[in-house]
Order: sequence, then C-alpha cells, then structure tokens
Amino acid sequence: MVPHEPDTARHVFSELITDLATVLPSHCILSRPEEKKPFECDGLTLFREMPAVVVLPETEEQIIHVMKLCKKHGVPVVPRGAGTGLSGGATPHAEGILLGVSKLNKIKRIDPVAATAVVEPGVRNLAISEAVSQYGLYYAPDPSSQIACSIGGNIAENAGGVHCLKYGLTVHNVMRVRMVTIDGDVVELGSSAPDVPGLNLLPAFIGSEGMLGVVTEATVKLIPKPEAATVIMASFATIEAAGDAVRDVIAAGIIPAGLEMMDQRATRMVEPFVQAGYDLDAQAILLCESDGTVQEVEDEIQRMKAVFDKAGAVRLQVSSNEQERLLFWAGRKNAFPAAGRVSPDYYCMDGTIPRSQLANVLTQMAEMEKKYRLRCANVFHAGDGNLHPLILFDANDPDELRRAEDFGAEILELCIQVGGTITGEHGVGLEKINQMCSQFTRDELDAFMAIKRAFDPEELLNPSKQIPTLNRCAEYGKMHVHGGQIKFPELERF
Amino acid sequence: MVPHEPDTARHVFSELITDLATVLPSHCILSRPEEKKPFECDGLTLFREMPAVVVLPETEEQIIHVMKLCKKHGVPVVPRGAGTGLSGGATPHAEGILLGVSKLNKIKRIDPVAATAVVEPGVRNLAISEAVSQYGLYYAPDPSSQIACSIGGNIAENAGGVHCLKYGLTVHNVMRVRMVTIDGDVVELGSSAPDVPGLNLLPAFIGSEGMLGVVTEATVKLIPKPEAATVIMASFATIEAAGDAVRDVIAAGIIPAGLEMMDQRATRMVEPFVQAGYDLDAQAILLCESDGTVQEVEDEIQRMKAVFDKAGAVRLQVSSNEQERLLFWAGRKNAFPAAGRVSPDYYCMDGTIPRSQLANVLTQMAEMEKKYRLRCANVFHAGDGNLHPLILFDANDPDELRRAEDFGAEILELCIQVGGTITGEHGVGLEKINQMCSQFTRDELDAFMAIKRAFDPEELLNPSKQIPTLNRCAEYGKMHVHGGQIKFPELERF
Repeated sequence: MVPHEPDTARHVFSELITDLATVLPSHCILSRPEEKKPFECDGLTLFREMPAVVVLPETEEQIIHVMKLCKKHGVPVVPRGAGTGLSGGATPHAEGILLGVSKLNKIKRIDPVAATAVVEPGVRNLAISEAVSQYGLYYAPDPSSQIACSIGGNIAENAGGVHCLKYGLTVHNVMRVRMVTIDGDVVELGSSAPDVPGLNLLPAFIGSEGMLGVVTEATVKLIPKPEAATVIMASFATIEAAGDAVRDVIAAGIIPAGLEMMDQRATRMVEPFVQAGYDLDAQAILLCESDGTVQEVEDEIQRMKAVFDKAGAVRLQVSSNEQERLLFWAGRKNAFPAAGRVSPDYYCMDGTIPRSQLANVLTQMAEMEKKYRLRCANVFHAGDGNLHPLILFDANDPDELRRAEDFGAEILELCIQVGGTITGEHGVGLEKINQMCSQFTRDELDAFMAIKRAFDPEELLNPSKQIPTLNRCAEYGKMHVHGGQIKFPELERF
Repeated sequence: MVPHEPDTARHVFSELITDLATVLPSHCILSRPEEKKPFECDGLTLFREMPAVVVLPETEEQIIHVMKLCKKHGVPVVPRGAGTGLSGGATPHAEGILLGVSKLNKIKRIDPVAATAVVEPGVRNLAISEAVSQYGLYYAPDPSSQIACSIGGNIAENAGGVHCLKYGLTVHNVMRVRMVTIDGDVVELGSSAPDVPGLNLLPAFIGSEGMLGVVTEATVKLIPKPEAATVIMASFATIEAAGDAVRDVIAAGIIPAGLEMMDQRATRMVEPFVQAGYDLDAQAILLCESDGTVQEVEDEIQRMKAVFDKAGAVRLQVSSNEQERLLFWAGRKNAFPAAGRVSPDYYCMDGTIPRSQLANVLTQMAEMEKKYRLRCANVFHAGDGNLHPLILFDANDPDELRRAEDFGAEILELCIQVGGTITGEHGVGLEKINQMCSQFTRDELDAFMAIKRAFDPEELLNPSKQIPTLNRCAEYGKMHVHGGQIKFPELERF
C-alpha cells in the first residue's frame, strides 16, 4: 500500500501534492525541506524522520479533503498536535503526510452552567483554563507541558498530570469528540450524558494516538476552582518509608489532589535551580496536596499529617500561603528542565506500577544504574504509581545513547513484571512498541488490530505505531532471548 | 447463518445438544419447556421468547466450550446475568442458546490495601459490598436491584444507581474484565493502572450488552465507606423551582453523593406504602445527600441548605440520624414496587437530558399523559439528568399496552430532541433499538457495527440487540413519517 519504489513514490507524491493544492490554500502545504524540518520529531527527539509533506489545514472541511485524498492515493497520514508528546506518537512517516491541527485553535463555546467547553484540537491545554477562569472553572488534567501542548494531542495520548490522581486523566475529562476517519467521514463519539447509548468508543479513541481518526472538536468537562489548596512536604529517611506512607494515605481513604515523590538525586538536581526549600538530606520527599473548601482542606491536612507522622516522616512542612504552595510545586514541575542543567541529555520514562511495589522497583532501578553506568533521577506521581525516571546521558556518545535506550526498555519490562503497565500518561507511540509484545498476549494485540482495521482497513493512519505486528514481536522476543536477560513467557506461544 | 427452515433448525439443535452434553454436566443443560420457562424474559417482561436451549455453565472452561460449539454450529448465544435488566438485553433468541452465568458466583480475591476485588460474573452486586464490609470498604454502583442483580449483568448494561452522580457508573468502577469471545478466545481488557497501554477497549465492552463476549471475571474498585452521611429533603412549589435548585447545587461546585427528584404523583404514590414523611403538598421534592468525614458532611450540608434556601425551597428537613436517612431513601428506592400498588402494570423508562431541560421535559411529559390517556409518575436521578418516568397501564388491555409503548418511545425521542440520550443506566437492549436510529447517524452506527464484527463477524452474540440494521432504521423512519409526529433529519440521508 505504501509505495517503496522511489520513482513510483515520487510520482504518487507529485499527484497528491497537485490534488492537495486544489483543496488547501498554498500556505497550508509545506514541502520544502527547510519548512518541514521543525516537524521531523515530536518531544521524543531520539526518533527523527523527514515527512514527505506537511499539511496544516485550517478547517474540518479541509481535513476531510486531505483524508479522502490520502485514502485515494494510499498515502499514510500522521496526525500531530503541538508536538510535545514524549513517546514518538507524532514521529513522521518518510513516505507519508504529516497532518498538523495547530491552526484549528478556536474555543467555540463555553457553557458555565453545564460546566463544559467545546474546543478545536489545536487549543492549548492551559488556554482552556485561562478562558473559563472568569467563571471560577478550570480544566483539570495538567501535563507538565500544559503551556504548549494542545487538547488534540492530549486526546491522542490520554495525557495526565500532577492532579490526575483526584481528577482523572484526559479520558475522564473529555465527554465528546468529533473526528474525521480516513474515509473522510465525520463521526462523533461520547456524549454529555453520564451513560452513552450503544458502544462507548470514546475511551478507546482517547489514547489511540491518531490511529483511528483525526480530532476536529472536543467537548471537555470543567470543574470549579477549589476555594483553597495546601500542600504538605514530608521527608523520609528511606525510600521504603516514603513508599509505605503513600500506601497508607490511600488506605486511609484520602484522595489527595496530588501525591508526588522525588528521590534524593531529583531533589539535589532541582534545588539549586528552583530553591524550593527541599530537604536535601532526605532519601525521598513527598508532596501531598489537599484542595476543597477552607474547612475541608484544614480537616484533610490534619488527617494527612497524622498518616505521615505514623509512617515515620522525619520532617513535615505545610505551605502557609499560596506563594509557598506554588514554590513547593515549582521544584517538581521543573525537574525536567533541571535535568538539562546537569546532563547534556535526559530520557524521561513513563510506566505504572502497583503502589506496593514502589520501594522494590526503586531498588532494582538503582542496580540498573550500575549495570548501564548511567545516572537516573526519580520523580513520580506516587499516588497512582506512575513513574517518571529521568535517565541522564549524552546523545553525542553513541554507546551512552544505546545504554540509555536499553536502560529505559528494562525499566518498562520491570513495570510489567511487577504487575504494572508500560504507560502512565505518555502513550506507546514508537518508543514502547516492543514492550507491547510483553504487556499483551497475541489474542489481545489481535483485538486491538481488529478495531484499528474496522476504522482503517488499509492501515494508513499513523502506521507502525502503538500496535506491534506479529513479526515485530517475534523479532523482539528473539533479540531478548539472545540477550538472555529477560524472560517473556507469553512469547513462547508464537 | 441462523437456520430458518424448521427441520434444519431441529437437526442443528439436536447435534448441538449432543455436543453440549460432551462438555457440560447434564444438570447444566435445560431443554424442557418447564425448565426454560423462567428464562423467557428479563426484567422487561413486555418482551418474551422461549430460547431453544438454556445452558448454565459452572466454569470459564465450560463457557469456552459452549462458545466454540455455537460458533461451529452457527447458533446465536444470548448471555444472561441475573435477568433483572430493564431493556430486554437478555431477551432470548428463539433459535439460540441462552447462556446464564449465575453459577459462576465466587468472590475470588479481596485486596484491602489496593482496595480491589476479583469476582466472577454471577456474584450479586450487594454481595461484593457485604464481603468487603469488614475492611471498611464497599462497591459504589447501587442499582435499585442490587440485592439480586449480578456484576456480569451490571457490566453488560453499564448499570448505575442513586450514588453514581458522585461515584460513577459501572464503567467508572470496573478496572479489568476477563472475557471469552465467540471464538472461545480469552481476552483481558483494562488494567489496574490509571492508564491502559494500547486501545482502551474496556469502556466499549462495558455496556456492550453481551455483543462482544461473555464476562468470566472482573476486577472491581472498592472505596472506603464514608464516616458519615446525611440527606436533606427539600420541597418546592413548582417543578421549575426544583429543577433550578438542582442546577444551582451543581453550579455551586457541590457534587452530592445523591441528588434525586420525585414529582407529586410519585410522592403521593409512595407515601402510603413507605411513610417516609414526604411533603405531599409540594409539586416536587429533592433528596440531596452528603457523605464524607463528619466535618465535611456538616460543612457541605450547610452549603446545600444555603443553595436550596436561595432557590426558594418551601420546606427543608435534614435527616437527624441514620434511621431517618434510610427512611428518606426508602421512599425513593421503593417507587417501583409502590407503582405496582396503584396500577396493574408499569413501564419504567430510562433516558438522560441536560439538567437545564428538567422543567421543559416534565411539562411536555404532562402533555403526553393527556395524549396517551395514561398516568406517569416521575422519579429521577436529577443530579445527572437521568429520568425514570413510570408509565402506569394495564397490560391486559392491548390498546393501553400499545399506548404505553408509544408514550415511552416519545419520551425517548424527546430526550434526544433536547440534547440528551436514550439511556441513563438501563442500556438499549431490544427496547430502545428504534431510537438508536434517531440518536446516531448511519456513519456512527456503522462504526459500532464494525467493532461488533471485529469481535464477532457472524453476529452470533446477542444478535438484533443494541445496534439497529439499516433496514430497521429505514422502517422506523418511514413509520414515524407516516405518523407525522416526529421528524428525523438524519434519516433523510438514507
């Protein structure tokens, strides 16, 4: 379906570009290398590919035309939001179109009574909260990239953030999506009612990384800004004690607005950069936030403090005002840029483990640091077990680069082994496609592919992402059996 | 695929029953009319059909065998939980097998730290909460039938309940499902992590009414029993005022544990039966519950009272102890049996509307009472806009029966017209299949059918439920155009 013979490919593309020029203004078609260069990767810069052509449509109608033309010519389409994704979900296809939705950036309706907003896919995550702030409302999911990332990309990757423990991921905060299939059909998924008649395909669409269709509009849920918010910073002498404290907070029936852990390497990396006042002697610190009415927050903070005391916290500090609360969070939110100060490159991983496995996994990751001779700082959404190890390396050293990738892959395999998963909020993309072979059985991957083909039988939409082929799994399995380090019982079925 | 010629059908069935006897103990196969009779309908008794055979397997392995045999013989399979469903999702197929999962009724694991339980599909909804009560936990969704209905059926219909406004429907409380496809493959959907790598098919499976597979195991989320709960009963002089009060509570950023409305016909019907102390002079009453810590509840009840005062409540009564709280709820929970005291039969509808449309829809339903010459009592989950009109009629009068069905259908069409949906928590089943033609466009129904066929290409699993065929929509559209009462713009596309 994808032309592999260069001359044929060139011929198909010259025809396609001629056709595109009939449905898109010329400023929406980028085909010169210097125009296409900014689109050669997303936030996962390890993977780069120059797309054959970049299109930046301005309307849903134009997207419909583009999809129909790509279907007609059998050309792959890679959708792209703001390009901040961290798993290579928007890495271009060398023989395909990169379809950016950044120009569809209007907030179309705000309904303060129903507490919903209807937005186009290119609207930035934070722009929604800014626009509805006058009504005392906000949009809850808050990825670290929220100043830049767009709702279309958030939907593609099921983005999360610090406050998702209490308020949910993108899938819990988007009620309805309007999208265009590869056939150019417009399909609406979801509903603003609690139940959805028929098959509820919206949650399968959210996180499907552009493999089923291109978002042209979304209805998002807004929630009232809490009256008050306070954060506790708790220090622990051991990782184990901090991990147990996380478990105890949840077991006490408290759902914090955020519950984050940073290990000593992370606090020491961040503190000179942000001066958040972190306890640099602690092996780990927890940031635990309560929000709600003034009365609720006072009450909940007392209950949280009691749990941390009992769990052996060596130091507890409660933010005394909004400025201090934001400062405590500033360190956590700037962990990624801070990594850039102490290392030429860093590789941010994303996986999820049962809360009971926090200490075990951190211990095993410390062993991996020795094995791969690379440092790793740990910041994570501890409340929901979502790890974000930052592997520090130098990409100019090919051997370090290879070791960083292997280190990352081994962390993902460890997540599966302890009963967790290979994603938390960054998606699978290209990055984790091998680990999908370990996470799922062949029957499960076949079910995914059947759904994919129900929407896109020729596999033109974002091909080779997220769902591995049988061949890829077999190769990956074999490669690792050769390496001899990791066992994949389910691969024996192939 | 389904044999229509009686002799062939009889032949296929005698072969199938011979085969079934090799994989199931004889007491698990019911083929005599007197054995099959109890299975001829579910909770929607308007639809009855004698199944060709009933099987009640005891293990997942037996279900795999049954599915493979049905596939081999091309025989339809209708899965059934406890048979309490209200939309005919488990109405048998005359030429098919009815597969009941009631004998898979073990609670397999309880993890009080992770707050999860692993259960078989035949476990009763309330039995989960009873089993985990010793850990201070419970399972949140609470359909009125919770004493009898099973988790397998709850998953099939995405069941709700009074407390779903705050705690979500079944789809928000089931984390993982293990199911058997029509091919006899075992597939696990979902995950105990917040994000699901790959396509998140679990929410599409929940509510798919047995059309994609048969549940053999589920992991459910448990939540801590609240320390305290208090309910306010608020009376209003008009339906409009009560509807506005519902909107105001939500707009104030309060998410009540339950927020229910009953109109005067409903309170007057229920009060003699339950003596709940309802205000019979009020045109409508609201029941609004707060739960949480003692401090949170005290605080929230004050905020709720302030909203109701401002919204013009003519009487406010706050439950002063647990006994009184349960009494207030008893009236609401017994509305259905109470209907049986004042009418030979009642038809319980289920639809969802935007909260802003409550008063408008109730006014229009009062007009329909005149048109169809039938009384209708209204109880509903007002907080999430989920209506449950109870149409009172006598099924022995064929004309009343027809008018009741038409009345119900017109209510569903009205739900769609005001921007709502035809389901809230009872599913589509057979009952609402015509209205699916109004709710969705052909492209959307095609997308549903494509997913269905990805799992079950021969359409053997619960055929003719939930997703209407093109023919059915065309017939339904024509019928209504003849009647001339309702317009279906999207049907003009056919």
